[in-house]
Order: sequence, then C-alpha cells, then structure tokens
Amino acid sequence: MRVAVLSPELELTLEDRDRPDPGPDDVLVRMRSIGICGSDVHYYEHGRIGDYVVDSPLILGHESAGEVVAVGENVDDGRVGERVTLEPGVPCRRCEHCARGEYNLCADVTFMATPPDDGAFAEYVAWPADFAYTLPDNVSMDEGALVEPLSVGIHVARRADIDVGDSVLVTGSGPIGLLVMEAVRAAGATDVIVSDVVPEKLALAEERGADLTVDVTEHDLQTAVTEATDGRGVDVVVEASGAPPAVQGAFDAVQRGGSVVLVGLAPDGEVPLDTNEIIDNELDVFGSFRYRNTYPAALDLLADGAVDVEGIIDFDAAIDDVDAAFQRAQEPETVKGMIRLDSE
Amino acid sequence: MRVAVLSPELELTLEDRDRPDPGPDDVLVRMRSIGICGSDVHYYEHGRIGDYVVDSPLILGHESAGEVVAVGENVDDGRVGERVTLEPGVPCRRCEHCARGEYNLCADVTFMATPPDDGAFAEYVAWPADFAYTLPDNVSMDEGALVEPLSVGIHVARRADIDVGDSVLVTGSGPIGLLVMEAVRAAGATDVIVSDVVPEKLALAEERGADLTVDVTEHDLQTAVTEATDGRGVDVVVEASGAPPAVQGAFDAVQRGGSVVLVGLAPDGEVPLDTNEIIDNELDVFGSFRYRNTYPAALDLLADGAVDVEGIIDFDAAIDDVDAAFQRAQEPETVKGMIRLDSE
Amino acid sequence: MRVAVLSPELELTLEDRDRPDPGPDDVLVRMRSIGICGSDVHYYEHGRIGDYVVDSPLILGHESAGEVVAVGENVDDGRVGERVTLEPGVPCRRCEHCARGEYNLCADVTFMATPPDDGAFAEYVAWPADFAYTLPDNVSMDEGALVEPLSVGIHVARRADIDVGDSVLVTGSGPIGLLVMEAVRAAGATDVIVSDVVPEKLALAEERGADLTVDVTEHDLQTAVTEATDGRGVDVVVEASGAPPAVQGAFDAVQRGGSVVLVGLAPDGEVPLDTNEIIDNELDVFGSFRYRNTYPAALDLLADGAVDVEGIIDFDAAIDDVDAAFQRAQEPETVKGMIRLDSE
Amino acid sequence: MRVAVLSPELELTLEDRDRPDPGPDDVLVRMRSIGICGSDVHYYEHGRIGDYVVDSPLILGHESAGEVVAVGENVDDGRVGERVTLEPGVPCRRCEHCARGEYNLCADVTFMATPPDDGAFAEYVAWPADFAYTLPDNVSMDEGALVEPLSVGIHVARRADIDVGDSVLVTGSGPIGLLVMEAVRAAGATDVIVSDVVPEKLALAEERGADLTVDVTEHDLQTAVTEATDGRGVDVVVEASGAPPAVQGAFDAVQRGGSVVLVGLAPDGEVPLDTNEIIDNELDVFGSFRYRNTYPAALDLLADGAVDVEGIIDFDAAIDDVDAAFQRAQEPETVKGMIRLDSE
Repeated sequence: MRVAVLSPELELTLEDRDRPDPGPDDVLVRMRSIGICGSDVHYYEHGRIGDYVVDSPLILGHESAGEVVAVGENVDDGRVGERVTLEPGVPCRRCEHCARGEYNLCADVTFMATPPDDGAFAEYVAWPADFAYTLPDNVSMDEGALVEPLSVGIHVARRADIDVGDSVLVTGSGPIGLLVMEAVRAAGATDVIVSDVVPEKLALAEERGADLTVDVTEHDLQTAVTEATDGRGVDVVVEASGAPPAVQGAFDAVQRGGSVVLVGLAPDGEVPLDTNEIIDNELDVFGSFRYRNTYPAALDLLADGAVDVEGIIDFDAAIDDVDAAFQRAQEPETVKGMIRLDSE
Repeated sequence: MRVAVLSPELELTLEDRDRPDPGPDDVLVRMRSIGICGSDVHYYEHGRIGDYVVDSPLILGHESAGEVVAVGENVDDGRVGERVTLEPGVPCRRCEHCARGEYNLCADVTFMATPPDDGAFAEYVAWPADFAYTLPDNVSMDEGALVEPLSVGIHVARRADIDVGDSVLVTGSGPIGLLVMEAVRAAGATDVIVSDVVPEKLALAEERGADLTVDVTEHDLQTAVTEATDGRGVDVVVEASGAPPAVQGAFDAVQRGGSVVLVGLAPDGEVPLDTNEIIDNELDVFGSFRYRNTYPAALDLLADGAVDVEGIIDFDAAIDDVDAAFQRAQEPETVKGMIRLDSE
Repeated sequence: MRVAVLSPELELTLEDRDRPDPGPDDVLVRMRSIGICGSDVHYYEHGRIGDYVVDSPLILGHESAGEVVAVGENVDDGRVGERVTLEPGVPCRRCEHCARGEYNLCADVTFMATPPDDGAFAEYVAWPADFAYTLPDNVSMDEGALVEPLSVGIHVARRADIDVGDSVLVTGSGPIGLLVMEAVRAAGATDVIVSDVVPEKLALAEERGADLTVDVTEHDLQTAVTEATDGRGVDVVVEASGAPPAVQGAFDAVQRGGSVVLVGLAPDGEVPLDTNEIIDNELDVFGSFRYRNTYPAALDLLADGAVDVEGIIDFDAAIDDVDAAFQRAQEPETVKGMIRLDSE
Repeated sequence: MRVAVLSPELELTLEDRDRPDPGPDDVLVRMRSIGICGSDVHYYEHGRIGDYVVDSPLILGHESAGEVVAVGENVDDGRVGERVTLEPGVPCRRCEHCARGEYNLCADVTFMATPPDDGAFAEYVAWPADFAYTLPDNVSMDEGALVEPLSVGIHVARRADIDVGDSVLVTGSGPIGLLVMEAVRAAGATDVIVSDVVPEKLALAEERGADLTVDVTEHDLQTAVTEATDGRGVDVVVEASGAPPAVQGAFDAVQRGGSVVLVGLAPDGEVPLDTNEIIDNELDVFGSFRYRNTYPAALDLLADGAVDVEGIIDFDAAIDDVDAAFQRAQEPETVKGMIRLDSE
C-alpha cells in the first residue's frame, strides 16, 4: 500500500509498505479522508514539536476516516463495511489517569503521527476497534476526519463548562478557533467574538456566524470586548492562537469570576502574566490538552446538523499530491486541507 | 387601575384598585403581556395548591412583561421607558440559601400569585428593580412574559448538566415539557424524545423538532426508548408531567449512570419507586424547583434566536376577557394563553 | 491449594484446587486476610442475590489482602514480596463507561464472588497487577482487606460531595454505615448522626465517634434530627440500611437543597416516595454502586491514620473454620468477621 | 468609645469616637478580640494596597469577635448577649454576583479596614446581623476572630476541590499558609508539604503537622516534591506567598491534571509563566479571592476540634498598646498578633 512518509531530512514522499494485519482487537480501515493538521505542517517544516523529533521516517496524519475492510478475531465481523473515524490517541488503559477517565493525560499513549508512532496518511491503518467510531449515515468521510479537531473544540467547551447564554471570546481564527466556536455555540453560548491577525480568517469566522470579529492589528481587543459586552467582559475566553499578546489579553477580556481556557501552544512558552489579576478577579484558568470521550458527542452533533465542520475545508487533494498539499497548507490564509483517497 | 382578582369563592373578576407607588428600590411597570400558567388555572379551579389557599382575594399571574413608567428614589431614572420582564419571586436576600445563590430555596420569598402575595394580572405592578430585566430590542413583550416558564426549562437543563450530544426523554408535552425541550436543545442535547397522552400536544412537540414523540396511551414508553437508543437508554429523563406511571417509567428509560430530573408535581405525592434500580444503575435524581439566575440567560437565548417560545401560545385575550381566557385555558389541548393589555 | 467453596446446595467446604498461574499482566498473591461481607453471607444463606445465582460451586470472598509471590511476564518482578490489597472488580477497559472512568458501571466486569466469578477465600489468587495495590508499611493485612468496604464509604462521600462542616445522617450502623461515617468525617463532615435498630451496633457507632445515635425502635428519627440540627435538617443523608422506613425517613431528615445518597439495597425494591418533596425541596438523590478509583485514596487515609477500619472487626478465624465463621457472621450484632491465612 | 486610627501620615493612635447606633438590620457588638492581619500591617507601613489609599483617617482591623450588646428594630432581641464573629465584607445583595452566591466578587462590597470603610479596632461596631455569626460555646473569642483567615483557607480548599487522600504543597508558611494547611487537612488531604524562606515559620508548620517542610533558601522545591511523591508531583499546589519563584515553582510541583490555587498576592504582579505547561499537563489554575459562605463551616470545624487556629497566635496585646503590637507584627518571624479588649 502507499503511505506518505516524512523523512528526517524533511522530505515528504510516497512509499510502498506492507498492508498491516489487524491485531485481535483491531479493525483494518481503508482510509478515505485525512485532514492536514497544523502539527503535521509543523513537523513538515521543522522536523520537531518540542521534545518530539522526527529522527526516523514518520507517516503523518491523525484526522482520518475510512471504511472497515477486515477485523481481528475478538471484533464483531459485522463491522466490516462500516464507515468509521479513528480516534488517534490510544491510551494504556491501566494507569491512574486511564482509570479515572482522563485518558488524554496517559503518559503511555500511542498517538498517530507523533514520533515514533506512525499516522494515517496511508491506504490502510489497523487500529483498536473501540477507537474506531461508526459514522452515522448522514455524516460524510470528510466530516468523519474532522471529528478530530472538532473534538479539540468540544473538550475546550467542556473545560470551560459553557452555560446557555454565555459570551465567549475566541482568540485565533484557525481551524481550532473556528471549531471551538462551533462547539461553544452548540453548548449554548449566544455571543461569540473572534479575534485574529489574518483578515481572511476573520472573514470566514464572520461568515460562520461570529457575532463580532476583531482584527487585532487594527483594533484594541480589550476596548472591542468592553464595548461589545457593555463593560462586563465575556464569560469565557478561549485562547486558541498561542500568541503571547493574545494570552495576556485573555485575562483582561474576561469578567470577574470568569474562565480562561488555554489551548493554543505558545512558540516559546513563557508569557508574563499578572497573577494578581487572576486572584482579585477570582478567575479559573484551564489548560486543555487534546480531548477525551468526545467522539460519540461529536458524531451526535454532526448527525444532528448542530455544527458545521466541512465549511472550514479550503481545498482537497489526492494523496499523490500530498507534498503540494502541504505546501499550500503552509500559506497563512489556509484553514484546512483534506487529502482524499479513492475507494477501491 | 384594573386588576383581575380571584375571590375565595373562586370567581375571577375585574376590580379597580389604586395604582401602586414604587418603593425606593422599585420600578413601576405598566403591564403589557401576562401568560396564564397551569398554577393560575389550578387556583381558579381548586382555590388551593397544597398548603397555599386562596382565603382572601388574590391577583393571579406571574408570567409578565411591560414597560417601566416610574422608578423609586434609589433606581436610575434612565430606566423609565425600558421594556422589562419581571422575575416573580423576590427572596429575602439574607438567609443561608440567598447567600449561597440558591435563592429559589429561600423560605421568605415573595412570589407573585401565591397566597397571600398578589400577582401580575394588573395594569400596574411595582417591583424591585433588580428583578425587572430589560428586554433586548428584538424580544417581544409576549416573549418577555414567557421568560418565566422558559426559566423553568433552563433550570432543569442546568440541574441535568446537559452535555453536547446528550439524548433526553421529556415526559409531558405541556408548556414546561416543551420549554424544557427548547432549553436542553440550546444546551447541546441532540436527541429529544417527548411523551404525553394528548395527541395534539405531541403533534406540537413534533412540529417544534422533537426527534420522536410517544403517545403512551398507545405505545410502551420503555420499548420506544430502547428502540430509539439502540438499547442504551437516554442520558437524561426530565419528568414534566407529574403522572405516576411517567415518574416510574423515567427510571427504566435512563441509561446506567444517567440522570432523572423531576419537575412535574404529582397529584398525590407518593409514587412507589425501585430504589435498588437507583443504586445498581448509580442514577442521579434531581428535584428542580422554579429557577434561579435564569433571566439573563433566557434573554440572551431569545435575543439570539436560539429558542422559540412564542410558538407555544395558543391564543391571546384582552384582560377584559380574562374569565373566558381561563375557561379556555382549562381545555386539555390548550398549551398557553396570553393576556394582553394595550399600551396607553 | 485450599479454597472455601460454596456449593449450589449451600454447603461451604474446603477443597483442594490447583494453584493458579498468573497471566502476563497478573500478580500471584498468597492470601493473608479476607473479610466476610454481608453479600458473602447472603449467598451462604440464600444461594442468590437478585439475578446472581450460585448454580455451580463458587469461591466466596472479595475483601482481601496478601503477599505477591510471583508475577506475569509484563509485570515488574520487583513487585514480588509486596504486600497488596486486591480490588475485586476488574472492568473491560473498553466500553463507554470504562473510557469515562466510571468503570464501576462496566457491564462486563469480573467481580470476585459474584457468580460465575470466583472470589478470594483461597490460598492463592492470580489478579491483574494494576488492581493489586501496594500496602504502605504501616497498613496491616486486615486493614488492606477492609479497603474494600472503606471504598464503598469513600465512594458514598464523593457522591455526596461532602463539604467541610457538613452534618450527615447515616441510617444503618453495619460495616458500610460505620465506614461511611469514617469516610465522611475524613472528608470534613463535623456532625454525624447514626441510626439503627440494633443497640449493640449503635453502641459501636457511638464509641467510634458518632455525635448522636438514634435507636429507631424507640425514638422518632425525624424528631431526633430536627432537635439535633435546630430545625434545619442535615446537609446529607446516607441511607445504608435498605430498610424502607429508613429510605422514606431520609427524605424528611435532609434540609432543603440537601443530598440523599442511597447505598443500602432494599429487600423488595419498591419504596413509596414523595416525589413532590424531592421537587419542592430541590433535593439531589444519588445512587452509589460499589466504587471506582478509591483504593489509592483509601490507602492514603489509612497510612495517615485518618480513618479506623480495624475497630469494626468482631472476630477472626482461620480458613479451616470458615463455616463456623459464617455461622457467627449471621448473628445480628456481628459487624465484621475476618478470615486469616498464615504466611508460609 | 476608643478606636485605633491610622492617619494618612501613617500614625496609629487611639481616638475617642461616638459609639455607633445599630441600623434596623444591625447588631451592635462590643469587640473582644481583633487579629492583626498582614493587610493591616501593609497599610500601617505603606499607606496603600494597590488602588486602595489611606487618604483620610482609617480604623484598621477585620478579624474580629465580640458580644452583642444591642440590636436594630428588625433583629431578634434574643441575640443580645450572644458571642459573635463578624464577617467583614458585606455585599450589595443585588448585583449579578450576589444573586449567584459569589458575593465575594461583588463590586459594591463594604469591607472593613479597606479605604474608605472603617474596620474593627474599636470598642463597638454596628454590623448587619446576618454577617454576625454566633460562636458555639466551646469556641473562644480569639478563635472567633480567626474565623476570618481560616475562611481564606476554607475557600482555597473549596476552590481546589480537595479530595480525601490528596497531597498538597503549600508555598508560604504565614497565617494564610498555615490555615490553608488546616483547611485542606480537614477536607481530607493526607500529605501536606509546606515551603517558606523563614526557618521559624517552617518549624511552626512542622509542629502543626506538616508532613514535610522545605526551606527553599537551602533546598530545591521541585526536587523535594519529586522525592516526596515518588515522582508523581502533588495533586494540588496552593501558592500562599506571592513570591514569583514560588508561583513559578507551583507549576512544576503539581502532577498532570492537577490544580494550582493562587492566593498570595505578588508584589509586582507580572510573573513569567510557561503556559504550554498548563496546556500539556492540562492544569486547573484557580484564583482565590477572600471567601464566601465559609463562616458557618469554619465554626462547625472549630466546635468539632477539627482545626486549630489559636496555635498560630504569637502574642496578644491590649488595644492601648496597638502601635507596639503593630511594630511587633512587622517582624518576619511573627505569624499572628491578637488585640484583646476587656469585657466591661
């Protein structure tokens, strides 16, 4: 089968590999749609994310959907033929975090496209059956692939404990920011403000129903939020950009007693924060890391038409054109590229 | 001014009363829309609800909206001219429950149209300014009046801690059941099943987006829920009918680890329940009493178009025809009648 | 090795069995202390609990501690020699409940001494290494065995969300009631009332620090609670008896906005409850089923001396005398019997 | 009556003032014990805390207990003679935060000894009756005065959502740190590590039951925590020093998925924080500001003997010696000074 491999020299090429055999608890999936994530692009450009280094060939991709073509001996063979999306992180099932249901914090997770674990840009992937979720009939393969970034948004909405009627500022209008907007609206937020530095991304946020967008290269964010909320500040800020000024601005935009969810990784890590403001305003600050137990909820939302994920796709490409697709994904106004594999 | 008064002999007549003066912290409101609630009708028919007895003349009505025409000395006079909805229960502000924000549990509450406290079927009502909430421009007086029953629904949704993608069974398709449906969908529920015994009410639930309706005079509720949920049961049941078979059925319809919210009062109180089922399935059972801190959220939802409340109004009437309106409100297929007072 | 087996004819005898081999992820444990639980006694007397029927020979016992004597190939062999307590329910690790950390609700659990799964009255037991918890040096084998019922108490305290300063009524002064008292006090409850019908059990509760004990054969529970709480009612009731009058009384003893945790199984199941009281007082009612993620916390509490469990042991016996021990465990004033196996 | 007044020139002198009359909802209290808080000392030294400036004479003190000697017309005169502690912050009772029970976030609060509101170093104080809590018979006046700083600790423990068996690091061994230790242990924490830079304060922490103390002038905090927790990190860190290195260290000492509560104000405010660590480890960071609904719980804990507060008192003094007492309170090894007024 063909796979798209990133070499330690950062060349992305197609190779031939043996088709994997499903283990006893696995399904074998013929891939159909695989999204290009910012982390894939980051490996492609830089060869590393933090301590994770591409020091041997790595198959990228972790936003995936396809069709079950075979199953392991412990798996119901009625699943053959099912359309599925794969949750890319499979935890150890035995540690304290797993036992508590916080399996996204498991230190022994296998996570697609995170060195040394291969990802989904492949014609076939064998994967644990319980991490392969059946797509409802009215959910497309592309939507199935985008359950992964939608899950990030749902996990953020849960971390923020969104209540009906909440106002939310999302800093960052990339795929995560846009899908956070979908998730918080699905959870009852009625006013969503989105900020970014790229006009095209803000235009997309506006098209998709943001109540207000703020280009922070031209307008002061705190002033804009103050005006939009009659001086109250928002109930929740979701920082989805990682840009230090946005991280700092988050704490000025939120009302007393409100919540700040941090999900965008900062390029360098250290950001000067006014901790007295966190104390005096009694803020809740929540880190949000990947997601857990989101796939069933995401599929329910998609089947119900309660969220739109396909609208963030800018372009699609065949797996043969994966390198060109990654080139395009690097452009600042690109939100989401989707690689498609034909059915056999 | 005219008021609609229920006598201890259960005659509902218009009387003339002095227009009230606003206290120092009050607004004086010219009433415009007042909904007829099931409890109003119950007093009209029976003269009592539990220990609350109409033993002196009582002004009914607690779902109300109008226009501020004067304010007390401590209130910003910029509020004159505002369109407002009145939250009908004003707590003592000093007890342990009030201090904890559970002001709906305050034992010293003044609650409209609950003996001996008069209600809102009046041309003018003086009311604490902080319990008079400004209507957004795109929210009508009728919608303002219906913030009260919508609040019941929102409080239920909060008690149930609805998560995105949840499936919910609502037993009872009256105004509360229908507005619970609005609230849980706004909070992210994607599958809502509604049961009742009146076909017209179920038809309305279906029109308003119920995924499944079950006429329990013809179909077994548990069987219907089992089929609709592939054997899982629903995440949440909201019991909004008070009918003992529905209360009992709630516990069979909910999945292991799920929640049952009780909001419909039972005619006699005692219902035989299988407490072992509550233990073995580790259920959460929540009583839901009135509401707290719901008005701002309700108005945000209405302004956002996230919920529909006007669609449950069957008919409207002038206050001169209040007795006829109460007659009509007694018919089993009536959902909601609205009394309107003209502006001056 | 010797095991104590209950036959379908309800004879409890010692038999010889082959020593089990540990599976790849297991430890092999030489048993040292095994408590006799009420459910063991119930099987011994009646041969069934609900749908669980002893229709083939069953090894009883699920409160156990011992010493690791061998490990499977995937387990660190440094564990040989460790003193451990075994958590008796091992879930499937793959279902929705397991993924959410609610593994006590897993439908595919293997639970010791629940037909058809054998229990711990055996010289050796092979058990998954991650469900064998290391005993701190200052925790005895008997204490290790009693981590199981203490876990029931800890889970109840978590379900009740005990806050510092809470008042708690525990109905039922058997092992579960007494260990609930330990757990809620450890979680900050300052006033604990215990009720029962057996004077000896109430005397033990008093010795162990109950602020008030109520013999409900002689005193009215609600009156006693009202007096003890200046008319407020308690913050939390834990119903640990399963007696229908106690279940009903729980709802009268709790204050408005308070919580009732149900943990004692009722003999027949159906109890008439005033659901209007649940609504008007906005109660939270929580079923509590077994426990999850309690063993580490229980061991921390024991190592810290924050709870006492050994004081509930009435008697101990050698495994050779297991039948006599079960006879004694049937007496109403017995709280807890402990079977001890000598070290080799 | 005599009062201790701080002038804008920072002189602390006794003056004569008229005894206040209780308002209709007030009690008049003859003061008996008043603690010296770090904020009192800060005003005494610097004349300001942030934006709060002593620009007219100010009575200091907000940790107080005394005896009710008169009541206003709406207050039960049975309260005369009661021993009470005064909660020093009285909110507006009308804003959104008050309605939600988050009254510590009320912007219109009256808070003792915060310019321009006078405090409790006075022979008599008139105060709202519902913010004057009756002392149980076995709780002393000094303990009553220390309910205020204990409340800070209880609020921290609630913000941290302490679970039984939790391990907690408290950075800062002053009065707040020590009373946080009391509160978290009362809530079930079994392992408490305390760090500071003053050996005398650490010695006191050790005497009072800290499982480990770390002098960070001599030992690396993270190394000490790692060793003490077998590499896991603590479940919760409470940062009670305001020292920037401690704030930063908090995030390294907490385990994945754990909580950091910030309660110590930093001298300058901005602290560089690694926000990626908050995200990758999915931390919860909670600001904790004053307290709410803590007084009844604090009194229950004191009456139960579940916490010790008197042991943090270093010295007491008569109000005549208030200036000397403030001098002594400035010394780094002083933890808590108590001003006592004789009964009449």
